[in-house]
Amino acid sequence: MHVCPFQWRYGSEEMRKIMSQEERLKKMALVEYALLKALKEVGEVPEEVDPEEVLRAAEEVTVEEVEELERELGHDVMAFLEALRRRTKTAGKYLHLGATSYDVVDTAWALIIRDALAKVYKDLKEIIKKFLEISEEYADLPMVGRTHGQWAVPITLGFKFANYAYELARSYERLKEAERRVVRLKMSGAVGTMAAWGEKAFEVERLVSEELKLPPHPITTQVAPRDGFAELLADLAILSSVLDRFALEVRELSRPEIRELVEGVRRGQVGSSTMPHKANPVTSEKISGLAKVMRSLVLGELENVPLWHERDLTNSASERVLIPHAFLTVDEQLKSTKSLLNKLIINEEAIRKHLEEAGCEVLAERVMIYLTKEKGLARNDAHKVVMDAIRVHGSLRRALEEGHELSKYLTSEELEALCDPSSYLGKARELIARTAKYVEEVVGL
Amino acid sequence: MHVCPFQWRYGSEEMRKIMSQEERLKKMALVEYALLKALKEVGEVPEEVDPEEVLRAAEEVTVEEVEELERELGHDVMAFLEALRRRTKTAGKYLHLGATSYDVVDTAWALIIRDALAKVYKDLKEIIKKFLEISEEYADLPMVGRTHGQWAVPITLGFKFANYAYELARSYERLKEAERRVVRLKMSGAVGTMAAWGEKAFEVERLVSEELKLPPHPITTQVAPRDGFAELLADLAILSSVLDRFALEVRELSRPEIRELVEGVRRGQVGSSTMPHKANPVTSEKISGLAKVMRSLVLGELENVPLWHERDLTNSASERVLIPHAFLTVDEQLKSTKSLLNKLIINEEAIRKHLEEAGCEVLAERVMIYLTKEKGLARNDAHKVVMDAIRVHGSLRRALEEGHELSKYLTSEELEALCDPSSYLGKARELIARTAKYVEEVVGL
Amino acid sequence: MHVCPFQWRYGSEEMRKIMSQEERLKKMALVEYALLKALKEVGEVPEEVDPEEVLRAAEEVTVEEVEELERELGHDVMAFLEALRRRTKTAGKYLHLGATSYDVVDTAWALIIRDALAKVYKDLKEIIKKFLEISEEYADLPMVGRTHGQWAVPITLGFKFANYAYELARSYERLKEAERRVVRLKMSGAVGTMAAWGEKAFEVERLVSEELKLPPHPITTQVAPRDGFAELLADLAILSSVLDRFALEVRELSRPEIRELVEGVRRGQVGSSTMPHKANPVTSEKISGLAKVMRSLVLGELENVPLWHERDLTNSASERVLIPHAFLTVDEQLKSTKSLLNKLIINEEAIRKHLEEAGCEVLAERVMIYLTKEKGLARNDAHKVVMDAIRVHGSLRRALEEGHELSKYLTSEELEALCDPSSYLGKARELIARTAKYVEEVVGL
Amino acid sequence: MHVCPFQWRYGSEEMRKIMSQEERLKKMALVEYALLKALKEVGEVPEEVDPEEVLRAAEEVTVEEVEELERELGHDVMAFLEALRRRTKTAGKYLHLGATSYDVVDTAWALIIRDALAKVYKDLKEIIKKFLEISEEYADLPMVGRTHGQWAVPITLGFKFANYAYELARSYERLKEAERRVVRLKMSGAVGTMAAWGEKAFEVERLVSEELKLPPHPITTQVAPRDGFAELLADLAILSSVLDRFALEVRELSRPEIRELVEGVRRGQVGSSTMPHKANPVTSEKISGLAKVMRSLVLGELENVPLWHERDLTNSASERVLIPHAFLTVDEQLKSTKSLLNKLIINEEAIRKHLEEAGCEVLAERVMIYLTKEKGLARNDAHKVVMDAIRVHGSLRRALEEGHELSKYLTSEELEALCDPSSYLGKARELIARTAKYVEEVVGL
Repeated sequence: MHVCPFQWRYGSEEMRKIMSQEERLKKMALVEYALLKALKEVGEVPEEVDPEEVLRAAEEVTVEEVEELERELGHDVMAFLEALRRRTKTAGKYLHLGATSYDVVDTAWALIIRDALAKVYKDLKEIIKKFLEISEEYADLPMVGRTHGQWAVPITLGFKFANYAYELARSYERLKEAERRVVRLKMSGAVGTMAAWGEKAFEVERLVSEELKLPPHPITTQVAPRDGFAELLADLAILSSVLDRFALEVRELSRPEIRELVEGVRRGQVGSSTMPHKANPVTSEKISGLAKVMRSLVLGELENVPLWHERDLTNSASERVLIPHAFLTVDEQLKSTKSLLNKLIINEEAIRKHLEEAGCEVLAERVMIYLTKEKGLARNDAHKVVMDAIRVHGSLRRALEEGHELSKYLTSEELEALCDPSSYLGKARELIARTAKYVEEVVGL
Repeated sequence: MHVCPFQWRYGSEEMRKIMSQEERLKKMALVEYALLKALKEVGEVPEEVDPEEVLRAAEEVTVEEVEELERELGHDVMAFLEALRRRTKTAGKYLHLGATSYDVVDTAWALIIRDALAKVYKDLKEIIKKFLEISEEYADLPMVGRTHGQWAVPITLGFKFANYAYELARSYERLKEAERRVVRLKMSGAVGTMAAWGEKAFEVERLVSEELKLPPHPITTQVAPRDGFAELLADLAILSSVLDRFALEVRELSRPEIRELVEGVRRGQVGSSTMPHKANPVTSEKISGLAKVMRSLVLGELENVPLWHERDLTNSASERVLIPHAFLTVDEQLKSTKSLLNKLIINEEAIRKHLEEAGCEVLAERVMIYLTKEKGLARNDAHKVVMDAIRVHGSLRRALEEGHELSKYLTSEELEALCDPSSYLGKARELIARTAKYVEEVVGL
Repeated sequence: MHVCPFQWRYGSEEMRKIMSQEERLKKMALVEYALLKALKEVGEVPEEVDPEEVLRAAEEVTVEEVEELERELGHDVMAFLEALRRRTKTAGKYLHLGATSYDVVDTAWALIIRDALAKVYKDLKEIIKKFLEISEEYADLPMVGRTHGQWAVPITLGFKFANYAYELARSYERLKEAERRVVRLKMSGAVGTMAAWGEKAFEVERLVSEELKLPPHPITTQVAPRDGFAELLADLAILSSVLDRFALEVRELSRPEIRELVEGVRRGQVGSSTMPHKANPVTSEKISGLAKVMRSLVLGELENVPLWHERDLTNSASERVLIPHAFLTVDEQLKSTKSLLNKLIINEEAIRKHLEEAGCEVLAERVMIYLTKEKGLARNDAHKVVMDAIRVHGSLRRALEEGHELSKYLTSEELEALCDPSSYLGKARELIARTAKYVEEVVGL
Repeated sequence: MHVCPFQWRYGSEEMRKIMSQEERLKKMALVEYALLKALKEVGEVPEEVDPEEVLRAAEEVTVEEVEELERELGHDVMAFLEALRRRTKTAGKYLHLGATSYDVVDTAWALIIRDALAKVYKDLKEIIKKFLEISEEYADLPMVGRTHGQWAVPITLGFKFANYAYELARSYERLKEAERRVVRLKMSGAVGTMAAWGEKAFEVERLVSEELKLPPHPITTQVAPRDGFAELLADLAILSSVLDRFALEVRELSRPEIRELVEGVRRGQVGSSTMPHKANPVTSEKISGLAKVMRSLVLGELENVPLWHERDLTNSASERVLIPHAFLTVDEQLKSTKSLLNKLIINEEAIRKHLEEAGCEVLAERVMIYLTKEKGLARNDAHKVVMDAIRVHGSLRRALEEGHELSKYLTSEELEALCDPSSYLGKARELIARTAKYVEEVVGL
């Protein structure tokens, strides 16, 4: 049966594998292996014990087998250990020695999350790179800027895309910082005191830490602190919402009345796509739709922060749902954004047309400043005369033609010069360059 | 691969089936069948067309086939129609005539939700019945009431359970009301105007409505209004949180220091379970953990209410996740609550012990009222003298012994009579009965 | 200092008053009065006690005084009682007899919520009425329907507005149903057993219930069950999101490229408002912005459902924030929606223009059905030939001119007849009427 | 009227001031001042203009005045500028030159948030310091560790508190990182291109940046990217939830059956507080209650991330609510946590009593490891024999007395030695020290 769309419909095969129960068991085996190896090294376990047996056993264990054993034993980690034990000769006897289940579960989460984040970073880098490329390519294509959905002052298409590159780079940076708090070793035993390993506890911790390349938490209860997981999901929700913002940009600009950006079949095919209005922006809509799921999931993990005392189990069932679904949601969004960028049609004609229609009015600010700086009006008075001209005559050009007070200060020639959007793009180019530099440093392109 | 725990770990087989893509296709076929039958009846489709072909075809279509066709056609409903069409002789040509995809998708949701709610009601009734039984059985077992986690005035165990029966019955009633708004036919074509069916549109709607036993929405856009779905998920989250409240009750009362209720192996086995402290309340913890998931999901559907114009597609991807996960979450909680009730150990000894330890102080209110009513003190002065007695002497009994001002108003005999909790249970018995009556009416036991 | 925008910026004076601490104290006094009156009637309190003193005293008590007393006594209800007591002669001694704080707090909430809902209903009715009026007035004005933001099949403006009337009426109905669960008397003493009132408890409850016109909860713990509050906030969030949906409609349709609906200065002033593009849709944007606040608040109350045992106090601080802010948020949205409807400019010219531009293609469905029904093509083949004609030639008209296969089945005359949107509005008129009837029944216009 | 509890009830005066509209206007004036000073320095404004006039004018402007002007002008920033202009001689004419409203609003937010975070850091540091002190003071007081609410392996009270210090330090670190993304200058004009300042734009930005000590965003749209605000609120919600976790610890441990930690009148007063059971843990409950509010608010800001194009206004109304309420919620929690720590009663007697009652069983792990390491049993077999002994005999001591199989491996003397909790605290002491070191580095104590 197909119940959850992440099982078959959404998400990459790679992320689905990382988030599978199968992989989780592999990661748990890896933690048990690292622990056993460490115990052997510190002399807590006899020389003849072969930790590699654990890894070999893990290759054979199936989810179904563990599930069946769990029904018997009533404990999932115990069930997995039993499945491993049955397949080992020397190792079984010392497996999990001194550890508590969550030494294994939380350290496995750290390993899983590290892999999942690596996939997120890879996709994100690729997307950011594409945004920078487009921002470079269209750095000088003027278009109307839009605030409140209304035409505002001109920008360039490249400038618009550079903003997304910046916002995505911030998400990259933020996840990297969260990673340092959540991808950590939890190897401290039943309630975090490391009591079962006696004097050798720190040595065991150090060896496992080195083997798994995970720095340890300075202290824990029975579990790693859940604030890190909450931060992770919040940061994924923010990334998800930035992707949503771009998808929304495309959905809006692909309206038949606007059609400046169109979600086409493949990017660049403006000519052949004569009927873009039939192409519903379904990829963008999927990206936006999944953002609603991702934003929701944050709450569940925030509620996991206040666990009881040295821990209660309520995080367990919820995290089995929240963590995989969060990563798979963002994974599908990233995959779809890559695809969207590939098939995005940039309709320069429509972009030019709207800028033209927007007329002098989107440059009213410039006229106002010109009156202030060159004609000596107070900023306030300049604002009034320009607004009045537009309000009464419908456009600045017509106001001059029809002899509005504005004509006392401004000739038609002056107005036309002021109305050229391509000379009123401010520092758009330099800001794109500054952003590219910043982004490259943060993301390491 | 096992990615989503609802695919294999959580939820009943029955609910998993209801929420499966396989069932969804069946329900969609049923809608197409009902539409075709109606069209035939009103003469829009030739007599020789056999609508039953659709149902037979649906038996053979697989999710995989539809998925493959979707990759080709880029549209999931179209893909399913194609899969049906390939298997029909007379029906294929007229399949889906005049309908839009969401006539089928949203009506299928209505059918799925009706089934899912039926399952919820069944479980909920069973649980409510058990709560009423326990409340009846233990109607007269006094126990300490707890507010702020502190000992308050006595209640009875039955009274405690009757409150849960009431709260759950409210959830039942609430879902029933929501059902009337969400389990409805959406059969109104592309943008809701029914244009494609011409003059016969209302007749078609009526026939499909009768066939599927679904009252139609008075009006819709391309889709059924999403407020109904949001209400449904909110109501499920409320139910989920009431189950959480009971699970929390058990988790708290099963603390080793309290142990009045214990999540045992099977209910009634007090004697044999000499070491309940080793039995972590894992079922209760799972119920509480899943409530965090369910509360989260509400948000996603609330965001689906403001769709664009006659609809946008952002509800689609999110509802594929939200609706099945919501029902499966609550389903697992209901299943677990049934199991919890079955294995719940009621430890009368501990209950009595704490009531005794709580002493006269939990009846301070009664003493205060006695002083007001029988001894003529102002309520305020009575409050002061009682509080002072406790504060200075540690207990009312000791206060009398040690000659506190209270002894001016109260003899030891009077105090002892007042301190019998079993005579200060108020209308607990009658309230249980009143609740049972109310609940039975609402739930129809 | 101005900290919270609901204190000065958002919300009507009326709702602000209902939600003020001042009003809350009044309502609490009213509950105390009703209780005292009842106690007198059943003979628990001497004849000479005058309950009216409580109401008179409440006129004089200030928030500041209660606050100061609370600092002393560490309990807000006790502080209020003390402030009342100081101003009474006969009543003070018997004030609050047998009651617990939450008998007063929760019953006051019920009274406050009843007032607040009355205000919501009043505004909502007014808004729904306006929607019905507009839907009637523009029942026959064809406009392009939009799905995915793309042009779909024609609707009428009246049909669009009728959908909102329906969705809002559902919110009205939903709130009415929730009201029955949350606007209830809680008069059951310390832990809900009514113990302090002895044999007369039910009589006291009945009298208070009649005085306040509030049906009692069949049973409670120390507090009314919080599921009702959560339902209330969820229902407000749904209403808030439907208002958001309409605001979004206006924001989108007022884009300079569309401008079919414009948030103007006053409705109907199309002519005078020659520069609508400068008028940012700030009222609509405020409505949408506040919906984000309202959706958030639901979560907090959902978390209040699982209180400990007979109650803990964690609902208290959160509800002081959540309930007033929820009602004030929706109140400001309702106020703004009324204002928006008043100043809404319906630009028939733009509406016609886009319908024209949309051309035959938005009637492709009709052509397809015509080919199926009149020309004997299979629905599938009809779909293919029409899509192909559009894809290759850009429009159906051009396809006929340039001799596409379609011309084998269709003449230009037939096409032109099919392309008249005003004859393809389906049952829009009747659906508007059906909706009006439904809405009037539900809302009682 | 008192509508919002943050206006009068919750939050410190200091934070209330930082979050007031009054302060917001001051900060906006500061931004206008810095801009004017910069414009003068680059020669865009005449020498005779005196920027200090702006600061002086701001001292006189009231919220009421601005509100009245806003009613006239329909724009809050314009209203404020007008109020300033009326009070200036030379500066008014050049005020706001080249700027857009959100240059001022978002930069003012940055300044406000910087102040608010400074207050949060101060309180947080103080709290963390106290946690470290307690963890040091009670580093060696053994107590029973609790998982699932059940007795687990021993810890020390100091170890418990060190975990909170760690978790709070993580919140400190996280907020510091978020601050770098959100406390930034936004001085880039109408759509972010800086066009109005021409060639001198970067110079203007640099000068304002230096004056306000705010690094600029590399690029922006009309507004600063909202991901930063969402991160900030998520991080505050995490901190809020860690405070909730500690409050929950106190609420649980102050139950009359446990009473290891009690929320008393003032810390250390164990002796005098003979009736702690009457003291409801109301401060802790308030902290927990407010966490529900704070978690909710995150959602609203997450929804603000996907603004339209170069911005829409929907963030405005929502942020007026979300940001002040978020900071004031956490502020009240911090204030209450400080107070809670001051009055916290540590009941060593109860702590010892429970550890004793917990008996050998909480050291079962140790016995198991002893059997494995010293007696050569397989870990698995050791687990079985120990569990069996407890299950059958109720305790390990009794198992030995009654001749369970365990007695084959273990003498009573051995058992007693193993059962001393104070010798099974693992690295608790060292972990406390490691944590203190880590925390001091992060927080800079």
